[in-house]
Order: sequence, then structure tokens, then C-alpha cells
Amino acid sequence: MRHIVESQQFTVPKILELFERTELMKKIALRGGTRDYEHKIMASLFYKPSTRTRFSFEAAMFRLGGKVLSTEQAMEFSSEIEGERLEDTIRIIANYCDVIVLRHHEEGGAKRAAAISPVPIINAGDGSGGQHPTQALLDLYTIYNECKTLDGLSVAFVGALDYGRTVRSLAYLLSKFERVKLYFVAPKEIQIKPDILEHLDEKGVNYQLLDNIGEIIGKVDVVYQTRIERERLENKHVDLSQYNINLDVLQRMKYNSIIMHPLPRSVEIDHSVDADPRAAYFRQAENGLYVRMALLTMIFDK
Amino acid sequence: MRHIVESQQFTVPKILELFERTELMKKIALRGGTRDYEHKIMASLFYKPSTRTRFSFEAAMFRLGGKVLSTEQAMEFSSEIEGERLEDTIRIIANYCDVIVLRHHEEGGAKRAAAISPVPIINAGDGSGGQHPTQALLDLYTIYNECKTLDGLSVAFVGALDYGRTVRSLAYLLSKFERVKLYFVAPKEIQIKPDILEHLDEKGVNYQLLDNIGEIIGKVDVVYQTRIERERLENKHVDLSQYNINLDVLQRMKYNSIIMHPLPRSVEIDHSVDADPRAAYFRQAENGLYVRMALLTMIFDK
Amino acid sequence: MRHIVESQQFTVPKILELFERTELMKKIALRGGTRDYEHKIMASLFYKPSTRTRFSFEAAMFRLGGKVLSTEQAMEFSSEIEGERLEDTIRIIANYCDVIVLRHHEEGGAKRAAAISPVPIINAGDGSGGQHPTQALLDLYTIYNECKTLDGLSVAFVGALDYGRTVRSLAYLLSKFERVKLYFVAPKEIQIKPDILEHLDEKGVNYQLLDNIGEIIGKVDVVYQTRIERERLENKHVDLSQYNINLDVLQRMKYNSIIMHPLPRSVEIDHSVDADPRAAYFRQAENGLYVRMALLTMIFDK
Repeated sequence: MRHIVESQQFTVPKILELFERTELMKKIALRGGTRDYEHKIMASLFYKPSTRTRFSFEAAMFRLGGKVLSTEQAMEFSSEIEGERLEDTIRIIANYCDVIVLRHHEEGGAKRAAAISPVPIINAGDGSGGQHPTQALLDLYTIYNECKTLDGLSVAFVGALDYGRTVRSLAYLLSKFERVKLYFVAPKEIQIKPDILEHLDEKGVNYQLLDNIGEIIGKVDVVYQTRIERERLENKHVDLSQYNINLDVLQRMKYNSIIMHPLPRSVEIDHSVDADPRAAYFRQAENGLYVRMALLTMIFDK
Repeated sequence: MRHIVESQQFTVPKILELFERTELMKKIALRGGTRDYEHKIMASLFYKPSTRTRFSFEAAMFRLGGKVLSTEQAMEFSSEIEGERLEDTIRIIANYCDVIVLRHHEEGGAKRAAAISPVPIINAGDGSGGQHPTQALLDLYTIYNECKTLDGLSVAFVGALDYGRTVRSLAYLLSKFERVKLYFVAPKEIQIKPDILEHLDEKGVNYQLLDNIGEIIGKVDVVYQTRIERERLENKHVDLSQYNINLDVLQRMKYNSIIMHPLPRSVEIDHSVDADPRAAYFRQAENGLYVRMALLTMIFDK
Repeated sequence: MRHIVESQQFTVPKILELFERTELMKKIALRGGTRDYEHKIMASLFYKPSTRTRFSFEAAMFRLGGKVLSTEQAMEFSSEIEGERLEDTIRIIANYCDVIVLRHHEEGGAKRAAAISPVPIINAGDGSGGQHPTQALLDLYTIYNECKTLDGLSVAFVGALDYGRTVRSLAYLLSKFERVKLYFVAPKEIQIKPDILEHLDEKGVNYQLLDNIGEIIGKVDVVYQTRIERERLENKHVDLSQYNINLDVLQRMKYNSIIMHPLPRSVEIDHSVDADPRAAYFRQAENGLYVRMALLTMIFDK
């Protein structure tokens, strides 16, 4: 594994190897970290600010003992002169580091960077309809860690699913496992796009589209909640509150199910839910650290 | 001591313990630093840029051997989505560090963060009428270090005192010591607010309000100068130059008195004053490093 | 050597000492770096963002084992209050670090900072007509490293030469060597300014002004290409494409010549040129790392 560009590149054995390594990283992080990678430099090259994702990667690097070059203003690179190419920027920055974590505003940015980069590229999100593979992997790890399996699970995705980069990537990864059942719960205006469904059909994955959380909330193992930008559904007479998780909804969920969310959230998960042990979203954010440590060491150790 | 939220939480013994530790930190910093805290990560979470304060904290962490996650764009967190709460942000960031240094734009922000944070919060200023306890402590340390005592001192605060976060916090801290005499020197439009005076009355602290630096300049031990935003007194017929420190004013001050300023300054201290040994404001900025190292180690060592 | 403010301060022996040290630094960087300077703190104080230059300096510091305080928003210092002076900022920041890398928006900013700074200042560019000495040194090192000599070379500068900070500084440095021949190739509206030519006359350096790359492209050892901002020549009926390097132009160049560019580029060097071994601009960016490591250690070791 040289670059991490899209979730498709992870096979099941590779995923399980990653999760084993993640367990080890958790132990290392909880005792403060290691000095083993002190001579490694990571560059955070963010064309759009995303402080949470950036901090998660940079903390991973620090717990490994490494160093970090950081910018959330990389757009300055491209705006500065007309016609400057991402490819040139990557070739320059590659001289100053051992790995580049790239958040690019255009779909396919990470792939373009990886095609020419002398150092490994990690895609930290490219475009709103693009990929965010490390998020998908930490989501999958969270399910694995909470449910103790990845086979036979039923997972409901709720919210704005059409442009949900994380939902798309995670659905893709889940399709690799046995007897998975997926529910896509959203107003029809923002339902999951056909390309994902075609993929699920190909893989023979069982799925269902719903406009209502009610009939399946009591039987799913995982509710993966996402934000619905209110303004996207203006004048559409959709009652968004029916997609929210609150104590009432919680009561109808299985005792051993979990609620996930890529965060930040708005109103779609009520704060009263946070205290329930099924609220897994802050643990999910924590797992981001360990999974990213594991990915970085897989790159450095190869 | 878990969080550092407001200066009120520091008792006299705690302050003296801090200052003893500060002396030790000064020695460590002057020989380049230590590697003792290499596994600690500090997050600088600034909702408004304040490069001086941020650099002072981050240098303190570096002299201790630690690592730093840093943003001056944390406002992006809250603007990104309507309704995201500081509390959620803190819970996420806490997974990636051992201490959070928070500069928030709203009064009470630090207290809200401390109420839910799994890791210690250090308030690096919240709101314009809020607290900035580490500034108050480094101010107090500077007085202690320059005057060799904190009892029996007379201190004049000069400038815009109504919204002076540092003045308010320092007045509060000084009220804990014996036979202190405070002067508040300002045009009446921007004089110190009654809540501080009520507190001083309660503690039996001797104080006086003045609109003129003239009658006390020759007898005070400390002049704590602050900026007056010119536009705040437009059309008020106040001659602001009478609040400025220049060589004439300096001549009338005691030979062993000192001039302090939280910096940055505008015209209120003439640059000709800088060369005088009584100009303590750059030494005050230096002390920020040692006091913050001491505070960080008090948190890490507990 | 205390401060690095302008290329003029480097004598030929000092330059050769620097390049010898640069070779050593290259070896150190390629094996990952050293821990020798772990107690050194560098502050990147950028009044205007320049992520490439900043990363190059910061990576240099990391490969030496040091720590980095960083801001690209230092303008906040000066805009925050009317009348704050660069000098005050430098005096404050100097308490928190061992060296300051300064990118200032005003010509002469670095000199002003160096005049009062308690710690060494490295000028990372001041004003558009000012100096950028570390760029000039890495350019010169690249020529030295590629051509194996600095004497007897013929160098063509092409593009917008009037405000070309790097061109001006490099021409100055080259004038120190024997039998150098310089060509300045530009539309007359943006030709090199007379002050540089006067300096070359004084030093007896052979030079020629041209508006066309054609007649010398086949005989120069180095083509130093720069960007021409299209809007600067609007309505001037200049065919800018005649200043571009493409495969046709490349074919007419000597087999052992090189093409340099301070980057970022726009259309003035065609991407088809990149694969040719004479395209030295990415190696030039790489050399920035080693030259800056060498400069930092020259400061720290003195």
C-alpha cells in the first residue's frame, strides 16, 4: 500500500490487518505514544479547513513521535496564480515530507496527486461527492469494535445520503462482508444515488430504501445518522424532525445497537441521547486517532 | 487543579507555589528546555487569532518537550453548521490531546468547556468582558519578580478600564494581598466597572478613582498601562495624551517603580521610554513563557 | 553571521562554506534527520502566506530535530491596532524562540527587525521589490550543484524582471564570480531595473538586454525563467508566448544546460518539458531544504 486514495482499494484481509494494527496503536496512544517515527514528517495540505480531521491526523502523527507541516490555506497555492496545478504543488511539497495528507476541493484531486507524487498521498476528503477513505475505515472499525463482528449486521443510514461522502464510502466497504443488510432512510429528494445501489446489486447485498425511520428502528444494529442541511429541502413540505434521534426514538432501538455520526451534528441527534451507552459517536471520533496511526505506520513500515 | 478557568480559583498559597515553580521553569527554559513531557500534546483552540498569546503557550509546551496541535480558525467549527455547540467540539478535540488551550469569543466559553471536557481546559481569554487568568498570573508574577513582594504595593491602572479583561483579573488577584492600594485612572466614560469595586470593598482593599495620572504618578510602585481605543471617546472632548507615558511622566516616577502593559501598545507608551530600566513590559511578555510552563506542569504533574 | 537579511552580506568564501555545509545537510536529511537541535525553536512569522517557503523552512527545522511556532496571519498583529510597530512584535516573539523567519510585506522590514531583535532574523522575503536572500542562495547552490562551477557561466533571466525579487538577488550574487555573462530577456516594459545594471557595470560584469530568447537560447548554461503576470502587459501588443519554454525551445538548448524557475509557474514552462533532465526546477525546490538547514545550523553553531 503506497497511497490511500479510495476505500475500494482495501480488501477484507487488508481491512482486518488494519484493525489488528489499530488495536496495537490504541495501546501505544493510551500510554502517551512512541518515539519510533521521530524522523518522519507529515504534511497536512488542506485546501479547505477541516480542523477536526486535521487534528485527528496530526495527533496520530504526534503519538507516533513524528513531525507535522500544516496548512489550512492551501487554496492560496492555486489562487495565487492562474493555472497553477495541484500536480506542481505536490511535487514541491513532496521534497519537504514523508507523507502528504490532502484535503482537496475537487473530486478526483487525491487520485491526481497520487499519480505523480514521489511520497505517499492520504486522501482526507476530495470534493463533496468524492471519497474520504480514512473516515470510512474508522467508521467500519467503530462498528467492528462495538458490535464485535462485521458479518450479518443490519445498518440504517439516515439523513442527506445523496452527497454523503462518508455514507457512500462506508456502504461500499460494508458490501464486502457477509449477510449485511442496509437501509437508506431519507426524504426521496436526497436519497442515496443509483451508482451505490447498482454496486450493491452487483455484490448481491440486501438493501431497502425508506422515507421513514419508524419501521426499522427497532431491528437495526447500527444507525448511521448524518446531517440534513435544512435549506436543501425548503418548500418541499418534508418534516425533518421525523429523521431526528431523540429519547423516544432511542427507546425503540435494540439494547445492543449503536448510533454513529461523522460529526459535527446539528439538531439531528438530541443532546439528551449523549449519555446513553448506545451513543457511539464520540467513541467513533476517538477511533479516528487509532485508525490513522495504523494507516500511517502501514505506510511507513512497508 | 484540573482546569484553569478564572483567576478567582487561585489562593495565595497556590499562587506562591506557582511562582516557585515558575523560577524553576525559567532555569529550564534558559538552558533550552527539557524532554520530560515529550508524550504530551497540547491543542491551541483559538476562535479568534491572538498570535502572541498562542506563541507564548506553544513555546511553553515546546520548552517542556511537548507537541502542539494548533488552529486560529476554530470559528470554522461553529460557522460551518448552524447549531454546533462548543461542547461537541471540545469532546471531539479532547480525544486528540492532553490539554486544551481555549480562546473563545463568548464570555463564559471556558467555563462551559471545562464543565464537560475529559481533558484539562486552560482559558486563554473568553469574551471581551470575560477572564484571561494566565495573563493575570503572569502580570502578578512580573510585579512579584520586579518588586520582590506583593504586600504593601500601590498600583495604578491607567487607560480603558471598563472592558479591560486583564485589569479586571489582576485587580482581583491583587486584592488577595496585604495593604495593597489601587488607583484606577481613566476618563469617567471608560472607568472600571462597579462589580470590581464592590469586590474590593468586600475585601477591604483601599482604592481610589482618578481622571488624572498627575497626582499619583510620583508615589506608585506599578503603573499598569492599557490601550485606549481612540474611537471610543470621539466627541467626548477628552485629551487622551494626558494618559500617555513619555519621558516627562517617567521623570516623575519613583526610581524603583515599574511600567507594565499587556501589549500590543499604540501611542500610550512612548518608544523613548523603552530604554529605561523601569519599562518592564517586554520582561512581562518574557515571563508569560515561564508562568505558562509552570501552569502546564502543574496540570501534567497532578 | 547573526542575521540573514540580504544577499549582499555573503562573501564568496562564506558562500562556499555554506555550500559545503549544504552537502552535509543533504546527507543528514536523506537519512531522516538528526536530533541535535531538539532544543531550538524557530518562529515562522509570515505577514503574507507563502506555504511553499514556509514549509521549506519548517521542514529544514524538523530535519534538524527542532520545533516550530508558525503563523501566516501575522498581519493580524499590525491591523489589530493602529500604530503597532513591527519592532514591538519582534521583541515579544523573540522571547519565545531562538530564531525568527520573517516574511514581511514592506521592503526593508527584515532590516528593521534585525536592528532590534534579540534573536537572529532570517529574511524570507520583504516587499515585492525587496530581498529574498535564502531563495537567491538556493538558486546559486542549484547552479553550482548542476553545473559544478560558478565561474564562466552564461545565465539568461527571462520574464518579468523589474519586480523579480529572486532575479535581482541572484544577479547580485552571480556578479561575485569570475567571467559570468548575464542576459536579461524581457519585453521592455518589464525589463530589469537600472540599479542592478549599475551594480553590474561597477563590478565589470558582462551583460546584455534582449527582448527575445531566440538568439541566445542555444548558448546559455542556465535559463532562469520567471512568471509574467499577463495583466501587466495588457494592451501592450506583446506576444508573451515567445518567452515560454516548450519542447521546441528545449531542442535548441545545450545538452548540458539547465532550466530553473522559483515556482509556482503558470504557462511559461510547458509541462511537456518536465521530463527532460535539463528541467531543474523541482530539484531547485528540493535544494531549498538543504540550503535552509545549512543556514539554520550556521546561525545555531556560531
